[in-house]
Amino acid sequence: MAKEVTSKEENYSQWYNNLVVKADLAENSAVRGCMVIKPYGYAIWEKIQAQLDKMFKETGHQNAYFPLFIPKSFLSREAEHVEGFAKECAVVTHHRLMASPDGKGVVVDPDARLEEELIVRPTSETIIWNSYKNWIKSYRDLPILCNQWANVVRWEMRTRLFLRTAEFLWQEGHTAHATAQEAMEETMRMVNVYADFARNYMALPVVVGHKTEHERFAGALDTLCIEAMMQDGKALQAGTSHFLGQNFAKAFDVKFADKDGNLSYVWATSWGVSTRLMGALIMSHSDNNGLILPPALAPIQVVMVPIYKGQEQLDAMVEHLNIIKKELEEKGISVKIDSRDNVRSGFKFAEWELKGVPVRLVVGQRDIDNGVVEITRRDTSEKKSVEREGIACYIQKLLDEIQSNIYNKALDFRNSHTIKVDTWEEFKEKIEEGYFLLCHWDGTTETEMKIQEETKATIRCIPIDSFVNEEPGTCVYSGKPSQRRVIFAKSY
Amino acid sequence: MAKEVTSKEENYSQWYNNLVVKADLAENSAVRGCMVIKPYGYAIWEKIQAQLDKMFKETGHQNAYFPLFIPKSFLSREAEHVEGFAKECAVVTHHRLMASPDGKGVVVDPDARLEEELIVRPTSETIIWNSYKNWIKSYRDLPILCNQWANVVRWEMRTRLFLRTAEFLWQEGHTAHATAQEAMEETMRMVNVYADFARNYMALPVVVGHKTEHERFAGALDTLCIEAMMQDGKALQAGTSHFLGQNFAKAFDVKFADKDGNLSYVWATSWGVSTRLMGALIMSHSDNNGLILPPALAPIQVVMVPIYKGQEQLDAMVEHLNIIKKELEEKGISVKIDSRDNVRSGFKFAEWELKGVPVRLVVGQRDIDNGVVEITRRDTSEKKSVEREGIACYIQKLLDEIQSNIYNKALDFRNSHTIKVDTWEEFKEKIEEGYFLLCHWDGTTETEMKIQEETKATIRCIPIDSFVNEEPGTCVYSGKPSQRRVIFAKSY
Repeated sequence: MAKEVTSKEENYSQWYNNLVVKADLAENSAVRGCMVIKPYGYAIWEKIQAQLDKMFKETGHQNAYFPLFIPKSFLSREAEHVEGFAKECAVVTHHRLMASPDGKGVVVDPDARLEEELIVRPTSETIIWNSYKNWIKSYRDLPILCNQWANVVRWEMRTRLFLRTAEFLWQEGHTAHATAQEAMEETMRMVNVYADFARNYMALPVVVGHKTEHERFAGALDTLCIEAMMQDGKALQAGTSHFLGQNFAKAFDVKFADKDGNLSYVWATSWGVSTRLMGALIMSHSDNNGLILPPALAPIQVVMVPIYKGQEQLDAMVEHLNIIKKELEEKGISVKIDSRDNVRSGFKFAEWELKGVPVRLVVGQRDIDNGVVEITRRDTSEKKSVEREGIACYIQKLLDEIQSNIYNKALDFRNSHTIKVDTWEEFKEKIEEGYFLLCHWDGTTETEMKIQEETKATIRCIPIDSFVNEEPGTCVYSGKPSQRRVIFAKSY
Repeated sequence: MAKEVTSKEENYSQWYNNLVVKADLAENSAVRGCMVIKPYGYAIWEKIQAQLDKMFKETGHQNAYFPLFIPKSFLSREAEHVEGFAKECAVVTHHRLMASPDGKGVVVDPDARLEEELIVRPTSETIIWNSYKNWIKSYRDLPILCNQWANVVRWEMRTRLFLRTAEFLWQEGHTAHATAQEAMEETMRMVNVYADFARNYMALPVVVGHKTEHERFAGALDTLCIEAMMQDGKALQAGTSHFLGQNFAKAFDVKFADKDGNLSYVWATSWGVSTRLMGALIMSHSDNNGLILPPALAPIQVVMVPIYKGQEQLDAMVEHLNIIKKELEEKGISVKIDSRDNVRSGFKFAEWELKGVPVRLVVGQRDIDNGVVEITRRDTSEKKSVEREGIACYIQKLLDEIQSNIYNKALDFRNSHTIKVDTWEEFKEKIEEGYFLLCHWDGTTETEMKIQEETKATIRCIPIDSFVNEEPGTCVYSGKPSQRRVIFAKSY
């Protein structure tokens, strides 16, 4: 077990916090609820960003940038929207400081009060639709397919690194369409982009589904989501895609003329993922020795450690490793040689294990003499002596295998922790043990709330699949009729 | 001349604003001083970012992310720093809104006042050095070479798109070193990275120099900068690199133990460029027909326009163009085929000229029959019939030629607008005509301020070169002795 890391069996929550901090991913800052993302953590985020950005562009989206601030009055334009965000807004009221009259430091200059307060964006629908009003005149201006990478602020009272912070980084797509049909297709397209990304890059077997009315985004007619299972059986919402109908177009009076010159309100979607994905990544795969990063997102895919005696042998070893490094890099594999001479090899092994590097390659003099290298997988801890010849091909295949293995392990875990439950007694028992419960629900917010009050479980989603395979039954709580099962779970 | 674009001879400032808006780069938002960067403008910024990020990483830097908010008390820790930024701070005072008692909209909840006000970062030295305090214990933790891409806010009273906005996007590098020497080298390294980038990608012939004490960054011991000349002869500061000495280490008590265990304060640098570069890019090269983008930063390098009659010919033409497009893309050239059927070719030509696409390729039926294409350069407006065979190689060379030509044109302009001036009479005359004036200056802030008051000219920099070629003389204003010439100019 890694030094100073609490085991996940002992305290899952503390295990997570320990990993984030000890693996140098992030730390709390002097500002309540705001984190510092450290270089190693940010390097993972950059890989997430680069891949998502590519996928957004492949689906026809362009990036843009809208203001950090939102006039207070804009928030109020869409009734549910303001209801959803008013309680957690950072509010800018002044634009100047002045020397304190008592001579100590600075104070807010009372003469520099803003006419209208500005809200630090918690999300950008309002400021963006206010711009779209000027961009859209006719059907020829549609669709608009914009995304922005930005920081947003929601004044959360209880924060946790990556999972829930007052400021976080995210992307928010905001699209405008001529028809409801097209907007709904976009909503679905983007949740599927998220699901593909989660599965193929993050190695997360996510469930795609609809949120219930109660769990929807403030201002949406439908919210689609991807939900992942953490190792404690709790759910984590990893991305959402909203069909906003004409709500924001009406709030900001955005109409377009069709081919015949008739005016209609524009249809909207928005969709986003955030640095919360970092939390999902860490929590899903890691163990008591540290992170386990899927190779597709690992900033360092292979770490090389020379075993040596004396400077001369070290130099020779590093030279040898540099040749291997070059071979790997030609295949697009990222490599680090850890040639530090002030720490022991065992210390290096533990450190790179903690940081989740997928493959460790070790070479000693005897390995060189025998034409082999020692390869250790982070995911299974399996150690093997492998022919030096053809090592780049070997590692390339191994990285793919590790990627699949991490995904399959998470999938197996989820499958073994997902059960159909048909009685309220079993529900109450199993929900405490950490499961996704596939249950019938009568479709009312009333029942949903009562279940939440009694068990803290929420409906994570109404899985898309369930629409394909309808299965009538009776609500696990009220006994009323139901058309399909939904997923109940406790969540982050 | 492009429609609705004022000529630069008539009104340079309005010409600039027209270009930014008409070429779809950016627009003002509903929030005072904050701009919306539109997709086409943002695509240029993404190319700037990608290249700079590569250069930062090649010089050993890593990205990280620090909080948007800075506790008010942090700003006060470094005396000059707070003096420099206090007058233009966006201040967050509350963290919640509530329904207005009069039932109309929302108001700030008076019970949600923050204990300590938070400043939206105008720059991040203070919050970053507060973090570095925890990162640095010994010489082994040094150097720290971090950069962040972020938004910052400075409450400017008079704003202009890209050049001066309340919120802007930038990168800020913040490094920590064991010795003054190393920090000074870093300061110089990064200003040279900026100069290389400006010259080779933005086609801007910048001058590298030191700022005077009066013009330095608030809290720096030395500020290096790159200064570019706009087409009206005014200077634009395009990037700065600061040697901060131990000022921030002292303010935040950041010490390190050297090999012998002795404690010393850490040495610092910071350096940044912002979306202001977009302003420099537009102002330096463009003409009355629109933008002229250097190929290295153009989101679209070649636009193809088919000349056709009827749908059938259009389809055939587009098929033909798609083959050429593929050939170009294989060489890494970005291409757009404009096959719109609702606007005339002349309209398309004007639009892509306005947007500064470096090369236009036009094909009509006769061109296909003759095995040629028509190529038009944006920078010189030169039009040519070119063999279809080998067109990709031709265009690749042409793009390089355009890149050089744009740079050389800007360099010639600057050289012809840079003169040595030795009398105060000539100074007053020439400064009004738009020149960089190479003058002797007595080295006092007093003289610098008087010259500024009388002419609005400031010392843009003390060029690095002038230290190589010292040239004694007498101050153009005071007549006192001087060791070298400095650059005076009016500026943005």
